[in-house]
Amino acid sequence: MVNQKYLAMLDNKSVIRELSEYATARGKEIGYENVFDFSLGNPSVPAPDSYRDISVRLLQEEEPLKLHGYNPTMGDPRVKKMVAESLNKRFDMAYEAGHIFPTSGAAGAIAHALRCVTEPGEEVMVFAPFFSEYGPYIEGTGAKMRIVPIKEDDFQINFDAADGIFNEKTAAVLINTPNNPSGAVYTEETLTRLAEVLTEKSARYGHTIFLISDEPYREIMFDGKKQAYPAKFYPHTLTCYSFSKSLSVPGERVGYVAVSPDCEQADKMVAMMGQISRGLGHNCPSSLPMLAAAYCIEDTSDLSVYETNMNLLYDTFKELGFTVPRPGGTFYIMPKALEDDATAFCQKALKYDLVFVPGDGFHAPGFFRVAYCVDTEKVERSLAAIRRFVEAEYPDR
Amino acid sequence: MVNQKYLAMLDNKSVIRELSEYATARGKEIGYENVFDFSLGNPSVPAPDSYRDISVRLLQEEEPLKLHGYNPTMGDPRVKKMVAESLNKRFDMAYEAGHIFPTSGAAGAIAHALRCVTEPGEEVMVFAPFFSEYGPYIEGTGAKMRIVPIKEDDFQINFDAADGIFNEKTAAVLINTPNNPSGAVYTEETLTRLAEVLTEKSARYGHTIFLISDEPYREIMFDGKKQAYPAKFYPHTLTCYSFSKSLSVPGERVGYVAVSPDCEQADKMVAMMGQISRGLGHNCPSSLPMLAAAYCIEDTSDLSVYETNMNLLYDTFKELGFTVPRPGGTFYIMPKALEDDATAFCQKALKYDLVFVPGDGFHAPGFFRVAYCVDTEKVERSLAAIRRFVEAEYPDR
Repeated sequence: MVNQKYLAMLDNKSVIRELSEYATARGKEIGYENVFDFSLGNPSVPAPDSYRDISVRLLQEEEPLKLHGYNPTMGDPRVKKMVAESLNKRFDMAYEAGHIFPTSGAAGAIAHALRCVTEPGEEVMVFAPFFSEYGPYIEGTGAKMRIVPIKEDDFQINFDAADGIFNEKTAAVLINTPNNPSGAVYTEETLTRLAEVLTEKSARYGHTIFLISDEPYREIMFDGKKQAYPAKFYPHTLTCYSFSKSLSVPGERVGYVAVSPDCEQADKMVAMMGQISRGLGHNCPSSLPMLAAAYCIEDTSDLSVYETNMNLLYDTFKELGFTVPRPGGTFYIMPKALEDDATAFCQKALKYDLVFVPGDGFHAPGFFRVAYCVDTEKVERSLAAIRRFVEAEYPDR
Repeated sequence: MVNQKYLAMLDNKSVIRELSEYATARGKEIGYENVFDFSLGNPSVPAPDSYRDISVRLLQEEEPLKLHGYNPTMGDPRVKKMVAESLNKRFDMAYEAGHIFPTSGAAGAIAHALRCVTEPGEEVMVFAPFFSEYGPYIEGTGAKMRIVPIKEDDFQINFDAADGIFNEKTAAVLINTPNNPSGAVYTEETLTRLAEVLTEKSARYGHTIFLISDEPYREIMFDGKKQAYPAKFYPHTLTCYSFSKSLSVPGERVGYVAVSPDCEQADKMVAMMGQISRGLGHNCPSSLPMLAAAYCIEDTSDLSVYETNMNLLYDTFKELGFTVPRPGGTFYIMPKALEDDATAFCQKALKYDLVFVPGDGFHAPGFFRVAYCVDTEKVERSLAAIRRFVEAEYPDR
């Protein structure tokens, strides 16, 4: 017999996938350019030329046996060194190459980081709103996910609600900043308070509570600001990163875990991840894409389009009377729907060929996510559709 | 606290890794060309030019957003189609694209295949000798590994011993042909009998026992022969493949699972693997290496060196009086040591700068593995060292 759990999972349709399939089908009817598909978080700007150029150069100049050969269990030493040096320079850290574990994207990074710092049965705390795959990521380790409800005014951390959820089983806290789906950027004040709380709770329960910081949107920041680096605030931090968004290469599956040098067992963690890989079938990220990304570590795609799009949408939503915290980064914005049931709201939007995702899957009921990683020209055309939708469906808002 | 199981695993030193480290250290003393390092299964011939050329062409001609973008959960449709068509042509199968699940190498393939057809607590049968990572692969799923002892005369399947190990908990059987570490190639006779046994046991226990066939060495065959295709013999077969050896690209982590069209739940399996990926942090293999490998699916590196090396070593071992079944493929040979304790035998060999791996880790006590994926020139020079070693240490053999 096949595995019954995975078989049963086939019946759970993904809302995002269904919306995306609807948008594709509708696009065939009326032309895809006329469907305002804000459902998927796929980068819309190409990889920088440097990524292509370094890949071609490696293929043409490196010895194939070396370039395509097995990596050491704990990763390509060149990649580890380049990542450590870049993080040290940018964030005033003291990583050594041995603190870096290259992975297949952020998904691979989180899979390893979670298993490093939890035992089955322990708890991992997440803060709503959060990326819907955190559920399977955490459940896959045997740990239990505990959800802290949303802080509606600014999407920072709801510390009051968190206080009642910490307990002796809390092994780790998983954060994501800049945040998918809200676009919120955790402030220095938030990160300072989080570090204080984790220090206090670790002391109370007699064991270190680790911080896993998922940062694939770190380079997509608005208003010329920089994301404060969470590992700088709390020593027991495993930073998970993906080059998917900064270099627009999500299909190449390249990222890393960086273990803070001040973390408990910092000198053992990466070796432990090498062991964890054996049970996951992981075995390092692909050589060429990982090496090319590391050589491009100071580059990004032209990410300015996301800020342009955000401002267009934010101004329109505000003008139309939506409650909507202004994103500090990412390519997402998450306004409050104009009725309590965000799913009903998003269904009505479909009539105007506007594809939004209800916030329920992100544990943000009543909100909806707009992924504006699309051409600015299309965002501009969508504004009239949003206006028509809201004025027709919610005249008394 | 960090995870105690993975922390404890750091104390278990890998014998192969220790030997390889010894070889590297010794190489620094006397020159690496003078150390006959037969410890590691790393391809020694470069990737074919076609792999480089198609990679460069894809980088230069494909739209970067498409080339490096997210793949669908169940894999790139182009890759799936090319793999299915190639297998159909070569092995007279009837795969459709939907039966193919692209993975990060064979390790990723086995991780998904095992989870698809087992429940935690069930049993997976393996036949000694086998690749030492099968232990962590199976244990990582929550299933239990059951080992059928070696058939010493020819390294085919020991059906008599297997008979007492099947029981109602047997969910799957994991085979590897051509075989690492023995070089054995399962014959049509072996595969026919295996299919009969699996059919009979499935009927007796009232559920399908699945066959997982791990075939990364399928293209490294000797004497102009072809590996019989296991899925052709038994319908409930999940074929796991890696391009690591055929194209000499082990670091690029590209492979697939092919679900036989006649397999129970064949139409659900690949979708289940898409769900399994979520808990493993897998998310498809890297786009560019996977697509390049698929376009090169009819090519291989120049693999003839492995047969040349095998013949040199086989003839020498035979002449020196070793018991050694002749490999039908791979780049391994596994003679019986000249004393009962293969570890002691391999230790003595080190004095002659010969690095062999004792068979214990492969559940082949008393044997040793010789990985001859090295330059033929070096194999030729090693023959004198083997002769000196055997004549000095085992004069009365």
